[in-house]
Amino acid sequence: MSFRFDPIAIVHSCFKEKFGIPRQAGLIPEARGSLEVLPPYDRPEAFRELEGYSHLWLLWVFDALQPELETTAPGWRPTVRPPRLGGNRRVGVFASRSPFRPNPIGLSLVRLLAIDYATPGISLQLQGLDLLEGTPVLDIKPYLPYADRAAEARAGFAPEAPRQTLEVCFSPRVEAYLERQGTDWGGHLRRLIGQILSQDPRPAYLHRNPTRQAFGMRLYDLDIHWRCHPGQALVTAIEPHAGVARRELRPHD
Amino acid sequence: MSFRFDPIAIVHSCFKEKFGIPRQAGLIPEARGSLEVLPPYDRPEAFRELEGYSHLWLLWVFDALQPELETTAPGWRPTVRPPRLGGNRRVGVFASRSPFRPNPIGLSLVRLLAIDYATPGISLQLQGLDLLEGTPVLDIKPYLPYADRAAEARAGFAPEAPRQTLEVCFSPRVEAYLERQGTDWGGHLRRLIGQILSQDPRPAYLHRNPTRQAFGMRLYDLDIHWRCHPGQALVTAIEPHAGVARRELRPHD
Repeated sequence: MSFRFDPIAIVHSCFKEKFGIPRQAGLIPEARGSLEVLPPYDRPEAFRELEGYSHLWLLWVFDALQPELETTAPGWRPTVRPPRLGGNRRVGVFASRSPFRPNPIGLSLVRLLAIDYATPGISLQLQGLDLLEGTPVLDIKPYLPYADRAAEARAGFAPEAPRQTLEVCFSPRVEAYLERQGTDWGGHLRRLIGQILSQDPRPAYLHRNPTRQAFGMRLYDLDIHWRCHPGQALVTAIEPHAGVARRELRPHD
Repeated sequence: MSFRFDPIAIVHSCFKEKFGIPRQAGLIPEARGSLEVLPPYDRPEAFRELEGYSHLWLLWVFDALQPELETTAPGWRPTVRPPRLGGNRRVGVFASRSPFRPNPIGLSLVRLLAIDYATPGISLQLQGLDLLEGTPVLDIKPYLPYADRAAEARAGFAPEAPRQTLEVCFSPRVEAYLERQGTDWGGHLRRLIGQILSQDPRPAYLHRNPTRQAFGMRLYDLDIHWRCHPGQALVTAIEPHAGVARRELRPHD
């Protein structure tokens, strides 16, 4: 017995690579993106009255799985090492939200900002994403508080959101860059970077490696560079993503 | 682009047929069942530390879909008529939790009572089910309150649980039957039947049909019979399910 599903939508996200993506939806409220609904599902009537809901479930596929450094064999394994536990303790894969699961389906609760009925096509504007650019989405469901909210839930080794462990600072050069972007875009970038870095996106094994301090991640078409000091992340540079710059230069070569 | 998934578990449920199943998980707290984990996933370490969680998400497949009476063509349709809206108003399929969706994957929040590590096999004892016997399950995830709970959610046309519209009464014959079952089993049956019937499981078009008053549903290996009167459901008989009785008799024929 086996089931086949085709994506109904594709994610467009501020996250263009894995590094920096929060480990659950909603942790980075500023993380924006959209769903591009694929034909034949891009019909306005299929979304009728969805705008009455503030939150949606997305069911999606962990499509960008790459073997992690710690994994010696690819494929499903019965236990995983949650980042929250420092990467040392093993728990059962079904006691975790790890992407390395028998059926790699993800579940994300996101906020619905707007529905764009363009011609042609439909896209849903979302907030609180934890999804990579290009993620295939299998289903969209309205969030029903009366059925989807457990009143008094015990939650084992993950009782609350990961702590914000780093204070985020911006170098004078980066401050000047953000200033030049204007209030809307500059303010959004500042909040987005601040929310991501305050949760310290480094993998657990790098927390224990004080010799490596310089990191980079891509957001939109920008490369963000920062240095980690004890208790602090200092954003040192924001510049156009190299790959994009090269592609953009090509017509003018 | 298309994805293939194999079930990791199968549902064993008090619900042996569609009629009577609540429309969301958690609405019938007394609805019990279990998940039988399928090989090769029935390894104790795959569930390590899951007992620390009180609630689980099940991702499962609407496997028992049959064309509804109102459906003239099978397959996906862009709008559906939610039972909550009386079966008259059409909303978008993605604004509903209808089973008739492009990828018929269901999402249920259930309570984990216990994990049985039998030899061989593993089964999870669950409460608050909305699942039919034999439902294939694709994934089990722990419920994380900090990520899965929307604090201030607007929920369109389904802001709260469906109202309990019927008072449930038991005939003297049924009262005597429940009495004979003892406190545990008799009490469970009484609560289960009461919770199901108080929410009036009849399809909307039958609410408007006062000539049909007698109904039956199967729970476990029992057939439950009741009559609907204005504002009231009277349970008239509980008897062994005919099919089961025949099967059980066969060896003694």
